Amino acid sequence: MPPLSPSLPELYRHTVRVYWEDTDAGGVVFYANYLKFFERARTEWLRSLGFGQQQLKDESGLMFVVSHTAVNYRSPARLDDELTLTVCVREARQASMTLSQQAFRGDRLLAEGEIRIGCVAAGTFRPQRIPTAILDRLSLSTDRPA
Amino acid sequence: MPPLSPSLPELYRHTVRVYWEDTDAGGVVFYANYLKFFERARTEWLRSLGFGQQQLKDESGLMFVVSHTAVNYRSPARLDDELTLTVCVREARQASMTLSQQAFRGDRLLAEGEIRIGCVAAGTFRPQRIPTAILDRLSLSTDRPA
Amino acid sequence: MPPLSPSLPELYRHTVRVYWEDTDAGGVVFYANYLKFFERARTEWLRSLGFGQQQLKDESGLMFVVSHTAVNYRSPARLDDELTLTVCVREARQASMTLSQQAFRGDRLLAEGEIRIGCVAAGTFRPQRIPTAILDRLSLSTDRPA
Amino acid sequence: MPPLSPSLPELYRHTVRVYWEDTDAGGVVFYANYLKFFERARTEWLRSLGFGQQQLKDESGLMFVVSHTAVNYRSPARLDDELTLTVCVREARQASMTLSQQAFRGDRLLAEGEIRIGCVAAGTFRPQRIPTAILDRLSLSTDRPA
Repeated sequence: MPPLSPSLPELYRHTVRVYWEDTDAGGVVFYANYLKFFERARTEWLRSLGFGQQQLKDESGLMFVVSHTAVNYRSPARLDDELTLTVCVREARQASMTLSQQAFRGDRLLAEGEIRIGCVAAGTFRPQRIPTAILDRLSLSTDRPA
Repeated sequence: MPPLSPSLPELYRHTVRVYWEDTDAGGVVFYANYLKFFERARTEWLRSLGFGQQQLKDESGLMFVVSHTAVNYRSPARLDDELTLTVCVREARQASMTLSQQAFRGDRLLAEGEIRIGCVAAGTFRPQRIPTAILDRLSLSTDRPA
Repeated sequence: MPPLSPSLPELYRHTVRVYWEDTDAGGVVFYANYLKFFERARTEWLRSLGFGQQQLKDESGLMFVVSHTAVNYRSPARLDDELTLTVCVREARQASMTLSQQAFRGDRLLAEGEIRIGCVAAGTFRPQRIPTAILDRLSLSTDRPA
Repeated sequence: MPPLSPSLPELYRHTVRVYWEDTDAGGVVFYANYLKFFERARTEWLRSLGFGQQQLKDESGLMFVVSHTAVNYRSPARLDDELTLTVCVREARQASMTLSQQAFRGDRLLAEGEIRIGCVAAGTFRPQRIPTAILDRLSLSTDRPA
């Protein structure tokens, strides 16, 4: 997948700082932690659309779970780096959606991923329809050329 | 607290290996991860006494939660090190217990901690009595000179 | 140690959000992760005084390492909670300092800790004097009634 | 990719236990942690072939870094579950290799991934040839029908 420019207006952006906890003995961010960074960005993106996940669980018994992740690690990040994470909806279905996400330091693309998340019942992990209110907001947020 | 010799017979021991995930950019084990190592050892120690924590939660609605931790970090551990973790009951009460734990590489003490854990109801986090079966096993396991 | 009010002007404050990565199967923040939250706050506090740790390592070959942690866990935090972390210098010495830190959700104290950090050479982990520029800033930042 | 049977003799296997640290508030293993489990298995697999990564870094200045991960999460794991991780070489090149890995609880496939790792110089992260001794062992270990 081609990298998206971080300056595109339709991308949601979230900034994180790299702390000691994020690094490993290679002196750089431990690769698995990009999944954490991507998730922080998705969480803030959902919040920006008006949806908190704890509230979703408490009120509707629904959770979003990650069913697939594919990540390319292109360039390492180091302690104290400020990273910009992006979120872009690639595809939204009844019970799942696929997001494209990137991690940048300045203009440099460090990692990029495709994350598929599904809506499930909190107790049983059975697939459920994504609430209409969320799907409606998604279509609004992606109704621009991407 | 004085270090306990790892060769004392009454100490429970559990071995872990240091992986990339455990290290930080200082090239050594990230200090907060000793709390994880100590907990793995406590979990295996409880299991060795016949008690699984998921089973405890499912059957009795009880969880052990950590209420206090004090850890001294004496010497760093590195990737691929094999660490021995010890568990020793310092004090057992109706609803809580205090454990003394150490991390060794060979004979070298790397970290030592005192961990207080309490028994609570899984939903409310209200203190509950530790099941008698567990307290009975604890008194057996600590009924030796420590 | 008595809790410090989060409204005291001389405390450094840093805000974090609780994400899935921070929680455990008890439904709350995994206790070891308060050490991460405390460290993020210390890192931002040092940065607010003009000192980046990667820069310190690159330019002076010095690192701060944690030598002791003592934490009381008083009340659980949940997904989506916004936590305020505080930093207060308790004692500054030539090669180490002790900080008092708290985690609040609103006015409620969730956890409090004392963290001792030492200045060491990055390669050898041998104690080194804290750079004068940092000690000078610390004395300024703690030169108010605490 | 079709799941490999955990009973195939040519697969390397490593067992891990699920602890509190591995779970999240959904009550199951946090998906990003499968990358940690997979890596523990890769590390032990390399060790079983005679190669320690700290030793590789100290003696040759080489590190293996992860350049791509693709993981399907099929079924959740819970606290206290014992998981079997598998490692199988899909492709070995001069400077990188691709591994297929699975996580099973008993016969049930919970997660499966493809992980590409590259050999780099520890300081610069520039690609380097994988040492011949390792490639030779890999070809031996994969010289059976897979």
